[in-house]
Amino acid sequence: MKIICDGLDLSDAVLKVSKALGVKKTNPVLEGIYLKAKGDTLTLVATDTELTIEKTIRAEVLMEGETVVTGKFFAEFVKKLENEQVELSAAEENQLKIKYSDSESEMQCFSAEEFPRTDKKINDNFFVMKQSDFKRIVNMTVFACSQDDSRPILKGVLFEIANARVTAVALDGFRLALARANVSGFSAEMKAIIPSRTLMEIMRLLEKDEDELKVTFNKNTLMVSTNGTTLISRLLEGEFINYKQIIPSEFVTNLRVNVKTLAASVERASVLARSDRISIVKFDIKEKLMYVLAKSEVGNVNEPVNVNMEGKDVVIAFNSKYITEFLRIVEDEFIHIFLNSPIAPCIIKPVNGDDFLYLVLPVRINA
Amino acid sequence: MKIICDGLDLSDAVLKVSKALGVKKTNPVLEGIYLKAKGDTLTLVATDTELTIEKTIRAEVLMEGETVVTGKFFAEFVKKLENEQVELSAAEENQLKIKYSDSESEMQCFSAEEFPRTDKKINDNFFVMKQSDFKRIVNMTVFACSQDDSRPILKGVLFEIANARVTAVALDGFRLALARANVSGFSAEMKAIIPSRTLMEIMRLLEKDEDELKVTFNKNTLMVSTNGTTLISRLLEGEFINYKQIIPSEFVTNLRVNVKTLAASVERASVLARSDRISIVKFDIKEKLMYVLAKSEVGNVNEPVNVNMEGKDVVIAFNSKYITEFLRIVEDEFIHIFLNSPIAPCIIKPVNGDDFLYLVLPVRINA
Repeated sequence: MKIICDGLDLSDAVLKVSKALGVKKTNPVLEGIYLKAKGDTLTLVATDTELTIEKTIRAEVLMEGETVVTGKFFAEFVKKLENEQVELSAAEENQLKIKYSDSESEMQCFSAEEFPRTDKKINDNFFVMKQSDFKRIVNMTVFACSQDDSRPILKGVLFEIANARVTAVALDGFRLALARANVSGFSAEMKAIIPSRTLMEIMRLLEKDEDELKVTFNKNTLMVSTNGTTLISRLLEGEFINYKQIIPSEFVTNLRVNVKTLAASVERASVLARSDRISIVKFDIKEKLMYVLAKSEVGNVNEPVNVNMEGKDVVIAFNSKYITEFLRIVEDEFIHIFLNSPIAPCIIKPVNGDDFLYLVLPVRINA
Repeated sequence: MKIICDGLDLSDAVLKVSKALGVKKTNPVLEGIYLKAKGDTLTLVATDTELTIEKTIRAEVLMEGETVVTGKFFAEFVKKLENEQVELSAAEENQLKIKYSDSESEMQCFSAEEFPRTDKKINDNFFVMKQSDFKRIVNMTVFACSQDDSRPILKGVLFEIANARVTAVALDGFRLALARANVSGFSAEMKAIIPSRTLMEIMRLLEKDEDELKVTFNKNTLMVSTNGTTLISRLLEGEFINYKQIIPSEFVTNLRVNVKTLAASVERASVLARSDRISIVKFDIKEKLMYVLAKSEVGNVNEPVNVNMEGKDVVIAFNSKYITEFLRIVEDEFIHIFLNSPIAPCIIKPVNGDDFLYLVLPVRINA
């Protein structure tokens, strides 16, 4: 193969596909970026077999062909060629020549035959939604995915499509985050569990909030194509937890509270509570006030937060991290907090509508 | 003590002094910030005994007094109070009350008597120079300080004042960086070895390039006061290496080269050379060109760089890090490179004047 292309285009494409480079040393060719010159384009592909990213750029193709370069070194090298016209040629076996200005460098290659091919006929199902909505529902759920390998299915977000709505759900055993948005089109009702890493990489590809995003599916695979970049990912297989039965629907206490005020209080409380193993913050809700309390050997915090309240007084405690992580991403000015008892899950919802729901388990404390 | 002050002022002051907080657990009081209310000011001090930073802010003092709070927690806590009026009171033993809006928190304290006092009569000697000049000479030398504890004196930069000029020198056994600037005033010819950490903290205090910076000295101590902040630091004691005898004055090869072009070439070369333990880049200087070469199992680079050249052809190799680190901070468009042989030090100087000098030892390679 032999091509001439713009250094900035090349560098940008390499950066995009590099996110899918394999890092385990099990198969060295997966640490490579596959290059293919055809027609008037250069296509770059990286894959770790779970996630594949492919990007096509314009190139002057002097000779069609393909090769595989070591991804890490190639990425670093072309990043330093953004101001140059770059000629890539792989005439010799196992050697890529890189020419720019008066210089010529060479890089080791792998055989293109060894590089795994990815099936791109992924069109059994699809949904289409606004990029801004996709970003919102991913942001509001993905943080609650499990980091733990013991239950791999919880490392993904469940996407359920029904009635022109998508419901995204993530949970890790301590909390559950759910977010909903409209879809502007979909092929059929469906469920898919999308790995959190895949969602983060899709987010990175999205450039224009007002544009639509189309996601297509096969049984075990997802594909997104946008701005000349194609991302293909395995889905997580298995049954997701029946989340609906976890979420209580009746409550004895209902609070309406300002998000920023509560977030600031809990963050201050968590500073002084942090000397313990986990940072526990207590809500003492009585007489139309919510006292945010924390205590450790370093000191103690006691902040009254104004709330609109219906129902019974209650004292309940949480790992402060689970409260602050969620409050930081809520864009609403006010939220509703629903409680039953010091040992029952707390539910947070928007004041109007059902765009999100957050469930967090309390920490048992001594009265 | 009891004071009321602005949360943003307090947070800013805590952030500034925190840089001097002790991190070793040998003496817990050194992990504290000393607070003193007097007149209409609150003074905050942190020290690890090597470096002391003190900052005074305006406060409404309701009762004079002093205490010491745990620095890390106090810093994090007041950072979250930037929008509040804050009342601090230390009526009870070992307890600081922090009041803001309707809330009241408490933090553990140490006894103020345990906090070390720093002598601030530091006025045997001084020099005055423009802040921009100080920044320049520190930036051009401090990166070459040794990181190694085996020769503590090399963890500092030698400052020599003579003839209304300051010469700053740092070296680590592989390279030497020297920078010069004018001083607008000084008390006497003097030498001081200033720890690199102290220089970095002084840099952080400087806000206006055009303002003057005054540094005062005792035998073993330095003091800088600017914008209500005072920094006091121990100097490194002992004889600095006689750097003048290290620097050759005669050369067989003299090159004039564009800084950005050379830097880009060496950075590209270092990418492909990096698979080795250190990244070695070779300069093959012949026929009015300087070939930047690198070779490893990953690939090889060969870039001709245009130079103006006088003297003999030479081939010489360097640890690429030592070249790129310096080229990144040079502000000049062109530099002079002086060489003698493949095993003799390389000297880099400005095309005009003597504002800086960089010496780097080559790496021996097989021909």
